[in-house]
Amino acid sequence: MISRETHDRMANAIRFLSMDAVEKANSGHPGLPMGAADVATVLFSRYLRFDPKKPNWPNRDRFILSAGHGSMLLYSLLYLTGYEDMTIEEIKNFRQLGSKTAGHPEFGHAAGIETTTGPLGQGIANSVGFAIAERKLNIEFGPEFIDHFTYVLVGDGCLMEGISQEAIALAGHLKLNKLIVFWDNNNITIDGAVSLSDSTDQIARFKSVHWNTIEIDGHDPEQIAQAIEAAQKSDRPTFIAAKTTIGFGAPNKAGTHKVHGSPLGAEEIAATRKALNWESPAFETPADVLSAWRQAGARSVELREAWEKGLEQTDAGKKSEFLRRFAGDLPKGLDAAIADYKKKLAETKPNPATRKASEDALEVINGIVVETLGGSADLTPSNNTKTSQMVSITPTDFSGRYMHYGIREHGMAAAMNGIALHGGLIPYSGGFLIFSDYCRPPIRLAALMGVRVIHVLTHDSIGLGEDGPTHQPVEQIAALRAIPNLLVFRPADATETAECWQLALHNQHRPSALALTRQNLMAVRTDYVEENLCAKGAYELVKADDAKVSIFASGSEIEIAVKAAEALKAKGVSARVVSVPCFALFEEQSDDYRAAVIGKAPVKIAVEAAVRQGWDHLIGSDGTFIGMKSFGASGPYKDLYQHFGITVDAVVEAAEAKLG
Amino acid sequence: MISRETHDRMANAIRFLSMDAVEKANSGHPGLPMGAADVATVLFSRYLRFDPKKPNWPNRDRFILSAGHGSMLLYSLLYLTGYEDMTIEEIKNFRQLGSKTAGHPEFGHAAGIETTTGPLGQGIANSVGFAIAERKLNIEFGPEFIDHFTYVLVGDGCLMEGISQEAIALAGHLKLNKLIVFWDNNNITIDGAVSLSDSTDQIARFKSVHWNTIEIDGHDPEQIAQAIEAAQKSDRPTFIAAKTTIGFGAPNKAGTHKVHGSPLGAEEIAATRKALNWESPAFETPADVLSAWRQAGARSVELREAWEKGLEQTDAGKKSEFLRRFAGDLPKGLDAAIADYKKKLAETKPNPATRKASEDALEVINGIVVETLGGSADLTPSNNTKTSQMVSITPTDFSGRYMHYGIREHGMAAAMNGIALHGGLIPYSGGFLIFSDYCRPPIRLAALMGVRVIHVLTHDSIGLGEDGPTHQPVEQIAALRAIPNLLVFRPADATETAECWQLALHNQHRPSALALTRQNLMAVRTDYVEENLCAKGAYELVKADDAKVSIFASGSEIEIAVKAAEALKAKGVSARVVSVPCFALFEEQSDDYRAAVIGKAPVKIAVEAAVRQGWDHLIGSDGTFIGMKSFGASGPYKDLYQHFGITVDAVVEAAEAKLG
Repeated sequence: MISRETHDRMANAIRFLSMDAVEKANSGHPGLPMGAADVATVLFSRYLRFDPKKPNWPNRDRFILSAGHGSMLLYSLLYLTGYEDMTIEEIKNFRQLGSKTAGHPEFGHAAGIETTTGPLGQGIANSVGFAIAERKLNIEFGPEFIDHFTYVLVGDGCLMEGISQEAIALAGHLKLNKLIVFWDNNNITIDGAVSLSDSTDQIARFKSVHWNTIEIDGHDPEQIAQAIEAAQKSDRPTFIAAKTTIGFGAPNKAGTHKVHGSPLGAEEIAATRKALNWESPAFETPADVLSAWRQAGARSVELREAWEKGLEQTDAGKKSEFLRRFAGDLPKGLDAAIADYKKKLAETKPNPATRKASEDALEVINGIVVETLGGSADLTPSNNTKTSQMVSITPTDFSGRYMHYGIREHGMAAAMNGIALHGGLIPYSGGFLIFSDYCRPPIRLAALMGVRVIHVLTHDSIGLGEDGPTHQPVEQIAALRAIPNLLVFRPADATETAECWQLALHNQHRPSALALTRQNLMAVRTDYVEENLCAKGAYELVKADDAKVSIFASGSEIEIAVKAAEALKAKGVSARVVSVPCFALFEEQSDDYRAAVIGKAPVKIAVEAAVRQGWDHLIGSDGTFIGMKSFGASGPYKDLYQHFGITVDAVVEAAEAKLG
Repeated sequence: MISRETHDRMANAIRFLSMDAVEKANSGHPGLPMGAADVATVLFSRYLRFDPKKPNWPNRDRFILSAGHGSMLLYSLLYLTGYEDMTIEEIKNFRQLGSKTAGHPEFGHAAGIETTTGPLGQGIANSVGFAIAERKLNIEFGPEFIDHFTYVLVGDGCLMEGISQEAIALAGHLKLNKLIVFWDNNNITIDGAVSLSDSTDQIARFKSVHWNTIEIDGHDPEQIAQAIEAAQKSDRPTFIAAKTTIGFGAPNKAGTHKVHGSPLGAEEIAATRKALNWESPAFETPADVLSAWRQAGARSVELREAWEKGLEQTDAGKKSEFLRRFAGDLPKGLDAAIADYKKKLAETKPNPATRKASEDALEVINGIVVETLGGSADLTPSNNTKTSQMVSITPTDFSGRYMHYGIREHGMAAAMNGIALHGGLIPYSGGFLIFSDYCRPPIRLAALMGVRVIHVLTHDSIGLGEDGPTHQPVEQIAALRAIPNLLVFRPADATETAECWQLALHNQHRPSALALTRQNLMAVRTDYVEENLCAKGAYELVKADDAKVSIFASGSEIEIAVKAAEALKAKGVSARVVSVPCFALFEEQSDDYRAAVIGKAPVKIAVEAAVRQGWDHLIGSDGTFIGMKSFGASGPYKDLYQHFGITVDAVVEAAEAKLG
């Protein structure tokens, strides 16, 4: 039992580490760590199951700091509870280049950081994914292996962002009762009082999506403890509104927006030391307090050891499957199955839309990669993401593998990040490519963190036809290609689609996006090749001796490129075609390979039913681009291709014009 | 008074036009128009104040079809009430290239389409902007000139999208009581029943953000009428949950997702004709029904004429100001004031961050352009968007000109679209550039519609320093530049910032985004030039005879480019510098101008603290790019520029290496 005095000193240890680190960095946010220190202290010292010595224990409770600007709260906790890589030197180097203590918590920088947060609302939406993964794996492997809580700390910003509504509505619908959210209810935002811009009754709001709600004084350890215990017993997710004072303890600045995002200043820090009766110099935690914290960090060692023993003693197959899943290794047999499938394609030469080709590839994949968790943002019949193995998950039955995420692209993508970060599952989504604009922040964060989430993005150009410009991606492919560490695939036929899926699965440390057509596409990869030709990002699809023209294209425009090359050949002009399914992978190839693929033909033409941006890197600024210069239009897709001049004739004419 | 029988036939006219148009196009969404026909009929035949002959009457009520896929509902209403450009031929050409009847309602295609909708949730968020504009102009010009309602029809999709929460929370906070939202509560989404993915108690949800709520049978005209009348008297925005049957009238498919997004088929249409006792052939509305509808369309002629008379008779100054504001013309004196300000800058040569330079330019602008409505997504002190003229708008006082939008970038940007579309105001926002990712859909829609909204996007690179990669834009500038018809400005100093603001204001028919720094920048435009040099998108900032090196840059990297050119000159290498504040404007220049600016120096180098994508178009694929290849990092910004190699030395070395 931790006395009130000990609790206060433990919480103050967080407060001083935080304010001192921010002061030294002359940058950062002391207000939240000081205000939320009591909540965090009760949670970490009495309830959270974790072991700093084995930070990746799969059955640990997760703690997500959704209000990521309060990073010093998390860094303080990691240091105090004894995570070995979170040294006091790291705390002193807060926000310095190369430290583990970045301005916002960065997944992978230090153990114990479960996800990268900072862009508001992402953490709470990630946490829904963590809780989904927990429930799913709890069913699959049994509670003896997965049975944990996901705790989240959110601020007003997280709750104002729209993504939070998508997240809490989904969590409430799914009755994710092991998700426990603390609201650091401090009434302050950057502009001033919350009342400047908001008057939401958050309790009523969470009730409207069927959450359990509890209101407490966020500085009263016993109220905090009781709330956690009640939450743990709830059959629904729990929202604990903890009334706090931002910058608690700072005599002159607490409770104001002055303490949110700026150092307190030497004077106020001195005053806070006095007010909180804290005599230790900066970065020194009194020995008794550090000892209490280290004891708190050791609370779950036995549990963790028992868990490990349980895993050792279980059926060897189950154990190895569990370990494989959490290591993120793919099952054996996948590559062979894809090779078989490619052989079949080479025989049958089907011409499906690539969204359908994706379904066919997934039918093979989902039969082998049992850890895929599919879903769609209410476009299942359009995205073709639900294969025969995919049974819908419901609030009362998580044995299925398919999530109906609802019309919530942003929440879906962020939940997928949480699912992937949890471990044991590979999430893939379905959506329209145009609506990647609704979920760029989590796609970007997946790329920043390096996690394997796979976005199926169909209806990838004017080729979707009548729905018109609001639904026709024009700039989305370029905009996604601009994101570092994201693999954007745009396959040209069923074979390339299978290869791109294979690559997306094998890239364990980066996310992928597959841009797929609504309309049918001609088979262009008609011969079986064992090698994954898409793996190098671009390759010569149609060879030609002494080519005068190189035509580069992706996806649905490969068909145009191939036919244009044939037409040019018929006119005596030698033309080759380069398929470019993935810019990012091509960029990683050797200079020699790149030069060979780009080739030496005097005329370079690129064709893509999208904006030019990005293609100059392949064809040069003097190359010819056949594509979109404006938004699209509503009409049958063949009319649109004609209207916008993305045709075989246009390519042939451009080539002839350039050749003179 | 419209009898029940007449009402039913009027509503059925909508149903048959909708199902027949979808059938003929073999594409589209009949379910919503059929389900919501009763609500729309009561609204348009009894309450909505509008005049099809004067569709742009500034004081008309606005009707926003947020569920834009139900476009045939709107087109039917426009045709039936007598909008002259919405002919039966247009209805027959639904979803065909060149028709006014695009798949989703497109602003500008036909009168009566108040905003482009389709991407779900955008319409309801636009409508908050319409209601803000109404309240603001009502205060400013008096209720005799602006005093109208904004009606919205939303579906389940709109309400699941997170943006809807941002919108309704803001509307509830501001007590926008002339905003009336109908929920077409039909329980159906594309995947199937809403219960697959959602169980939100929408009434409780809207109550939690302080809306007036009413539940009705959406097929009972009297309940609909009573709800509207109650809503009109409310002191808060009203949410009318109208229980409807999707595809109402179709005997076999109504109430199912089969009727959502596919033609009914000839057989079901015939069955519907029978069930609804409708004998007219396709596209023919019985004369009595059309007559009733045309009378409904003529209801407000007298009101509109009286309004016009009132405007004629008012004070000449007020009248001309009102007309100027609604024409979107800028006040006289703006350009002269900016010229004066530029002269002052040339004298004082200040070196502010461009976010501060933006504030200084806005101080000049806001003093003259009284129609600007500023705001920020809770980053006011960081965005520098609140000048001396900007007093905060509060729920009870709309006399100010500054909106605290809250931590709601998506809702803010969509509300701004509504404000601009309403007319009479020019909205500008404040946000971090990184969070443009949170609001790309409305930025895109502003570009698609061609409306003047201006986004101030500060903290535009690794130059923001310690907040780290979650907050450092790397790909956002490229991603924004990819959007057609959007002007992305990245000014290099205070003078360029003023010029970019001038351009943003003068471009009445496209949106602008200003990427601005957190860190101070050297003045590079040190001589006064009357001409707006940024107007051509790029220009030679540092000339050099017989240049061997051309250095292209934007924003904060201009300083590096200028210093590198000086360093090269000191080494005897002639180098010029081209400032590129706006790619899109440069793209519009003559070939001669472009060629002259790009120049003939053998070495081309571009410098931008962002990804390369887009720059190849200027420097070629063999040009050298000094910028970012990855996400950023947390640290003091000068350390980061060194770490990522974006330095004067790097430019000089690259030039020398290329020159050999």
